[in-house]
Amino acid sequence: MKTDAEYACELDRDDELAPFRDQFIIDHDDLIYLDGNSLGRLPRRTAGRIAEVTGHEWGGRLVRGWTDGWFTAPQRIGAKIARLIGAEPDEVIVADSTSANLFKLAVATLQCRSDRRAIVTDDLNFPSDLYVLDGAIRLCGPGHRLTVARSPDGISLPLAELTGRIGPDTALVALTHTAFKSGYVHDMAAISSAARRVGAWSLWDLSHSVGVMPISLGELGVELAVGCTYKYLNGGPGAPAFLFVRRDLQDKLLNPIWGWFSARGQFDFALQYSPDSGMRRFQTGTPPILSLSAVEPGVDLVLEAGVDRIRAKSVRQTEYLIELWRELLQPLGVRLNSPLDPAQRGSHVSLGHVEGLRIARALVDAMKVIPDFRAPDNIRFGVSPLYTSFQELHEAITRFRRVLTERLYEKYPTDRPVVT
Amino acid sequence: MKTDAEYACELDRDDELAPFRDQFIIDHDDLIYLDGNSLGRLPRRTAGRIAEVTGHEWGGRLVRGWTDGWFTAPQRIGAKIARLIGAEPDEVIVADSTSANLFKLAVATLQCRSDRRAIVTDDLNFPSDLYVLDGAIRLCGPGHRLTVARSPDGISLPLAELTGRIGPDTALVALTHTAFKSGYVHDMAAISSAARRVGAWSLWDLSHSVGVMPISLGELGVELAVGCTYKYLNGGPGAPAFLFVRRDLQDKLLNPIWGWFSARGQFDFALQYSPDSGMRRFQTGTPPILSLSAVEPGVDLVLEAGVDRIRAKSVRQTEYLIELWRELLQPLGVRLNSPLDPAQRGSHVSLGHVEGLRIARALVDAMKVIPDFRAPDNIRFGVSPLYTSFQELHEAITRFRRVLTERLYEKYPTDRPVVT
Repeated sequence: MKTDAEYACELDRDDELAPFRDQFIIDHDDLIYLDGNSLGRLPRRTAGRIAEVTGHEWGGRLVRGWTDGWFTAPQRIGAKIARLIGAEPDEVIVADSTSANLFKLAVATLQCRSDRRAIVTDDLNFPSDLYVLDGAIRLCGPGHRLTVARSPDGISLPLAELTGRIGPDTALVALTHTAFKSGYVHDMAAISSAARRVGAWSLWDLSHSVGVMPISLGELGVELAVGCTYKYLNGGPGAPAFLFVRRDLQDKLLNPIWGWFSARGQFDFALQYSPDSGMRRFQTGTPPILSLSAVEPGVDLVLEAGVDRIRAKSVRQTEYLIELWRELLQPLGVRLNSPLDPAQRGSHVSLGHVEGLRIARALVDAMKVIPDFRAPDNIRFGVSPLYTSFQELHEAITRFRRVLTERLYEKYPTDRPVVT
Repeated sequence: MKTDAEYACELDRDDELAPFRDQFIIDHDDLIYLDGNSLGRLPRRTAGRIAEVTGHEWGGRLVRGWTDGWFTAPQRIGAKIARLIGAEPDEVIVADSTSANLFKLAVATLQCRSDRRAIVTDDLNFPSDLYVLDGAIRLCGPGHRLTVARSPDGISLPLAELTGRIGPDTALVALTHTAFKSGYVHDMAAISSAARRVGAWSLWDLSHSVGVMPISLGELGVELAVGCTYKYLNGGPGAPAFLFVRRDLQDKLLNPIWGWFSARGQFDFALQYSPDSGMRRFQTGTPPILSLSAVEPGVDLVLEAGVDRIRAKSVRQTEYLIELWRELLQPLGVRLNSPLDPAQRGSHVSLGHVEGLRIARALVDAMKVIPDFRAPDNIRFGVSPLYTSFQELHEAITRFRRVLTERLYEKYPTDRPVVT
């Protein structure tokens, strides 16, 4: 693969998704934003939608906004997300945060499956997931335990290391599909079926996958999933998350947070709680409508582009990024902290260097390149195919090389992360 | 008190808060909106703030928005709300929904005070609160129980009926300060001190009080509180809620949902959870920034007007509303479902009629008056002193009378609520 600037231009010219970039508000063309895996960009139509929800719906329709469409937004947007993850429309809703949704499903599972007392996970999982699972385990009383499979290299996890920990006492195997640091992608089919063979359920956090990786929850018979909407779905900072429960399990599981939005006959105001049937029982309190409404246009954009086309471009782009690394950065001591095999890699590439934090700071401050940094040494470059160009990747790695060759990082402090 | 239209004009002329009405976007001057106790109106500055957060912060600053100010917004806005409820700046944060916050504090209390197994509440409480408390009780295992004091008339609760149920096994007395149906206001000082005498804590849901009633949590030594921001604080549909924990208790209580925003050293990404100190430990996942940011300008407006002045106008307005009822509606069989004594009444007045649901529908559809309806027969008229005028109250009750005298309600169905 060639690594000159002209070749990057050529790749952009041949890119059928390139026109989607115009669907986003991109103010500063000299800024290279490669952190769409943390916070996706603002779609143009979302800016319009937020203005409409604010001015017309809240300002003008006032409380009538609820019956106009706010009440059903968690289901309506959930049904669209379902199409991205191979689920049925009535298996997904948008509600709360990913952490809260994981809590609800983990506690509900442990209470439903009281003959099984273990949750299995791994140390590639996002820390919030580990924390929430640990908290759920402790809340459900003594005898419960969290088993954490260990990655030998911090990048990937051999299947046997995980499956060896799944046993007859396992209630749940809870993993993040695409690892937040290395971008490693678990083999969902193999793991979910290994779990099912011993009667365990699997719960997938799809935060770093949804919108950029094809997912087939239904086909694989996956029991549970959660995920966020502010990365590749471009739903906005802290936008509400989604959760998926396989249809046959929905009425067997009880959300531990008995908020009124989960109740049957919410406006009957009965004094006794009765959970609604279906996914509605997994909502809790009143949803934040401004943030919730902002999710929908971003999901629509992904549906229009098609996840398969997005994934194909993502693979081309991470392959290209790795080729640039090999040519321009590896000779300067930068390591690849992501899998080489694209089948095992999501849509971001982590590059490692002992001066990672200061390099990330120099990139942001002096080079107008925004990656993010994850301790101890990962500089993550996220590829968001709807708006990331090949030229941006070329330019970013060129600037990265300058930070090293000109030692531009040396003037930056090492105390805490500059970006999140 | 006079009930003619000229007198209403006179009252508006004498109202020192009248200029605040211009701070809100009010499109249709013929629409009378008396449901600010369900969803407050859109402040002009909030519309501007939302556009800024969307375009400049998300669109332009992208992920840097987090370090620019999003991360500290829960504390910053919480500190402002603290001034409205007599708390210290570091005793309040904005996070999640009221139901989720109540869940966190109820479970945390039961786990912290494992020698006490009861929660005492009443049937005037908002059903979501009853549901969440019941769910928390069940989650914490057998032996725990929820005791519900019963209102003799559905309007108020004699103090003795409540205090008689508080005993040495009571961990928590959890009540809604201003009742959602009748507007009855509990005697917070008497109840919190009665609870404290037997070692119980009190937890107040301030949703229908904050921004319109003076509250002195600190002075009264109250342990815990929650509340919503979309009623008299005008924070927008489903805006994130707040929670208060008395400073000395903060590090004794453990939020059961161990999300990363509650963790010490959130960006260290340690594998083991360690709760942060102070109020930060009561956050959970990533907060919905658009909805969260919209809360602040509304709180600022209330601070500028001053809660004491708002309360004084609220009392004048509910007194006026009741006088109009006495003159124009009581003779037609409409009951007052709210306390007569203004000291026991919040900022809404419930009027009862067997045809309440159909009357509410006729008011909205034919009369352009928006109250709301709460089963079985309550038509609630919410007074939001920052934008409600005396003339609106006069006109609303005049139109209500027309609905009755002309039997306009008869063509509306009785099946389910038209407004929420």
